[in-house]
Amino acid sequence: MILKRQLFILIALILASGMAFSQNSPNIIVFMVDDMGWQDTSVPFADGVTEMNKRYKTPNMERLAAQGTKFTNAYANSVCTPTRVSFLTGMSAARHRVTNWTSPEKDKLTDYADDLFTSPSWNLNGISSGPSIPATVNATPLPQLLKDAGYFTAHVGKAHWGPFGTPASNPRNLGFVVNIAGSSIGHPESYYGEENYGNNPGRPLMLNAVPGLGEYYGSDIFLTEALTLEAIKAVADPIKYKKPFFLYLSHYAVHTPIEGDPRFLKKYLDKGVDSIEAKYASLIEGMDKSLGDVMDMLEEKKIADNTIIMFISDNGGLSLVPPRGGEAYTHNYPLKAGKGSLYEGGIREPMLVKWPGVTKAGSVSGQNVHINDFFPTILEMAGIRNVSTKQTVDGITFIPSLKDPALKDDSRAIVWHYPNRWTSDESNAFCYASAIRQGDWKLIYLMKQKKLELYNLKDDLGEKKDISATNPKKAKELAAKLSEMLKSYKAQMPIYKSSGLPVAWPDGTTTVK
Amino acid sequence: MILKRQLFILIALILASGMAFSQNSPNIIVFMVDDMGWQDTSVPFADGVTEMNKRYKTPNMERLAAQGTKFTNAYANSVCTPTRVSFLTGMSAARHRVTNWTSPEKDKLTDYADDLFTSPSWNLNGISSGPSIPATVNATPLPQLLKDAGYFTAHVGKAHWGPFGTPASNPRNLGFVVNIAGSSIGHPESYYGEENYGNNPGRPLMLNAVPGLGEYYGSDIFLTEALTLEAIKAVADPIKYKKPFFLYLSHYAVHTPIEGDPRFLKKYLDKGVDSIEAKYASLIEGMDKSLGDVMDMLEEKKIADNTIIMFISDNGGLSLVPPRGGEAYTHNYPLKAGKGSLYEGGIREPMLVKWPGVTKAGSVSGQNVHINDFFPTILEMAGIRNVSTKQTVDGITFIPSLKDPALKDDSRAIVWHYPNRWTSDESNAFCYASAIRQGDWKLIYLMKQKKLELYNLKDDLGEKKDISATNPKKAKELAAKLSEMLKSYKAQMPIYKSSGLPVAWPDGTTTVK
Repeated sequence: MILKRQLFILIALILASGMAFSQNSPNIIVFMVDDMGWQDTSVPFADGVTEMNKRYKTPNMERLAAQGTKFTNAYANSVCTPTRVSFLTGMSAARHRVTNWTSPEKDKLTDYADDLFTSPSWNLNGISSGPSIPATVNATPLPQLLKDAGYFTAHVGKAHWGPFGTPASNPRNLGFVVNIAGSSIGHPESYYGEENYGNNPGRPLMLNAVPGLGEYYGSDIFLTEALTLEAIKAVADPIKYKKPFFLYLSHYAVHTPIEGDPRFLKKYLDKGVDSIEAKYASLIEGMDKSLGDVMDMLEEKKIADNTIIMFISDNGGLSLVPPRGGEAYTHNYPLKAGKGSLYEGGIREPMLVKWPGVTKAGSVSGQNVHINDFFPTILEMAGIRNVSTKQTVDGITFIPSLKDPALKDDSRAIVWHYPNRWTSDESNAFCYASAIRQGDWKLIYLMKQKKLELYNLKDDLGEKKDISATNPKKAKELAAKLSEMLKSYKAQMPIYKSSGLPVAWPDGTTTVK
Repeated sequence: MILKRQLFILIALILASGMAFSQNSPNIIVFMVDDMGWQDTSVPFADGVTEMNKRYKTPNMERLAAQGTKFTNAYANSVCTPTRVSFLTGMSAARHRVTNWTSPEKDKLTDYADDLFTSPSWNLNGISSGPSIPATVNATPLPQLLKDAGYFTAHVGKAHWGPFGTPASNPRNLGFVVNIAGSSIGHPESYYGEENYGNNPGRPLMLNAVPGLGEYYGSDIFLTEALTLEAIKAVADPIKYKKPFFLYLSHYAVHTPIEGDPRFLKKYLDKGVDSIEAKYASLIEGMDKSLGDVMDMLEEKKIADNTIIMFISDNGGLSLVPPRGGEAYTHNYPLKAGKGSLYEGGIREPMLVKWPGVTKAGSVSGQNVHINDFFPTILEMAGIRNVSTKQTVDGITFIPSLKDPALKDDSRAIVWHYPNRWTSDESNAFCYASAIRQGDWKLIYLMKQKKLELYNLKDDLGEKKDISATNPKKAKELAAKLSEMLKSYKAQMPIYKSSGLPVAWPDGTTTVK
């Protein structure tokens, strides 16, 4: 009889606790910033404190860095959709073939016109996850796997995974239970509630009007703040019902239009910062406040100890003038160039990870990691094993670096591939380029110039001196490795307009298609 | 040892079954149609088959009627937002004071100008459920209670609970986990995917552009179909995870603009139906296909036996010409007038309910029921008891009528209150009117005319002959009852412009404010 009674109590407890057994799964927040550069923060990611670190105020990034691990050699791709598709799939951009940013309009090429090359037929319609759609990569998206494992998955902010007229225009088709303000657009028409974020009846509809958020129309609530409020609301339910959540809070900030966040603008102007750059700094600080508000919420709800926060940006800081102020291509100094480029300024990212119980407070990892790595890392964090995916996952887990920040694995090679043209500038690796980094070595293949550049980033972070001529063996070795990896990814090469033939691989060989 | 082993197996079973204990809660679908009249169907709701029953083709409504209970005396309010707020709160419109339709624009009166009266300060900003907002009714919405009880709550289609710039513009703030295509708008700018449902970059943004649905832009998918596809997707998760769901599928059809549904238009034109009315009939049939698709899905997923379906419209059929074709005020024949009116054509609704295991196949209930009643009925269906709501709930459960369709409770009195003006017509109870129905008796109070009209609907469904003069006792009795109920609801009366005094109650007394 006693045993029966114990049995009854035990069952009652199990029923009462509901999903207690799944509560052990940590909540996971990915805080994705748009177009934020490596130096756009008061957290020093280079050696020592730079002038830009002094300019920007990001106290909540400092707070997160103090609680977790700072990655000083973290990378994304050079423009946004390729990064976002890699994040969602774990695939190298060379493999998923969404190598350039996607237009909100279906079947629309976004490549800048070129005399010599045509871009290959890349996946300009982004991703698909249900039935395959022309010019998309068909893959199993990360949030789908998390949802299937019992996570409440919420998308808040910029999506940009595919054009209108395809399922990817709605993150709900990619495994997110809830979608707020995400669609096919890559930047906001307006950051201002007073301007309804670009939705103004009677005035021409702008392609980049931010969807949803109707409750903030006419208010003085800046877009960054509205998304923060919505993100906090979005996770209220899973917190209340004790269900683990995955929150992808993907700010439209700090992408153009560079509109001042009125909460923070004045102090930068008062300090004499260039008028455009002051607006940019206010976008940064508004984004940082969002991070702080989310962290505060986790503490108030007493779930900070079971919530992983991962902070990253989707490509390097924009360095074109205009729309940026100041001198062109200097905004990511000491890094070279900026968004769109395979030089460090275009691909190196501020990255922070806090995993309570795993990461060490204030630790720093110098390990080379890439946005591709988030896919396997997050699955492992969530305790999801033996998943079946449509795609081959190229990323590798960086959990070893979270457990041991001193770990340095120089065998790891990271590849970038951009068989596209971003802008008029051909000189800053903004077009038709591939690159590889292994250890401190980096090789860039400039296809139009038929040139290989070699840098040792430990000695030359700013990629000022091409040392390929003095290190022919290393250059050759990396060119071979890069070629081999690109081939294994089934990478697409640009096509010569004159001959219809593809550009040669970095090692000089050619695969005639 | 054996007991221990049994214990282990039992616990394992409980864990494996997950939320098995909540699976007993039935899924609940409310299929809400916009502006559909009582006769806009091939299901006969009057005695015998009418000409309109012959015109319209709604085979899936027939199918649902054959599986459940048809209510022949079901009511809503005379315009949409009042009905939708009553549905969400269980409150009489006289009490919630959202007595007229709300504009998508905040603080904007929608009343037609009148020489004699001003409308009272009704809640023109709709509903609020969090912090109270000026000119809103602050209440606990039905989906919030369902969500709190473990339901997955999905909103698909027209919301129309409050203007842009207030939380009610997003159904997620009213207890829906997921919102698809719902906002502050009350009708679609366009039903056509080819027209992006009204979202056309470069062309002026229309206030009534349908939000979301970007994946269907440029396609030939009619709005009704897109919402159906989205509704089926929205419940895929709870079905998969065996969680009970509440789906509010609220079609924009058959509201203006009366645009032909190309899947069904031709056959009505071929039959010689007026060109506008043929489009209208195609909207009806497209809506009916949606119902059938949802029913098919339930059968395919093998959950039809645990899913309640409730079908209703939000007010009577539109009877203004234009935009309707044919002769004005005839569209709801044998009922008088139409949308906006307190005559039967404006308030009587086609209503069907199937509750597997409770309703009897093909049964008919003549009980007087009202949209207010959905709130307590649905809570009871979901097994939710002892709820705490901010508001006083005026509706009463109609579950007794589901269990016993022969039941007739003539003690039940239903009140309508419209201290507003809808349109230029003053003759069809489209303005400043209250009404009460009890048993077969109906009294209408026309405030501008200072007149009471009495009808016995059993003898005079078309409200052709006012019998107040020959039945003064009944008229007086109902006027007293109506006055009493309006006062108990704290109803607002229109104000005389000349004196600033309120209009008298139906019984002739006046409360000076």
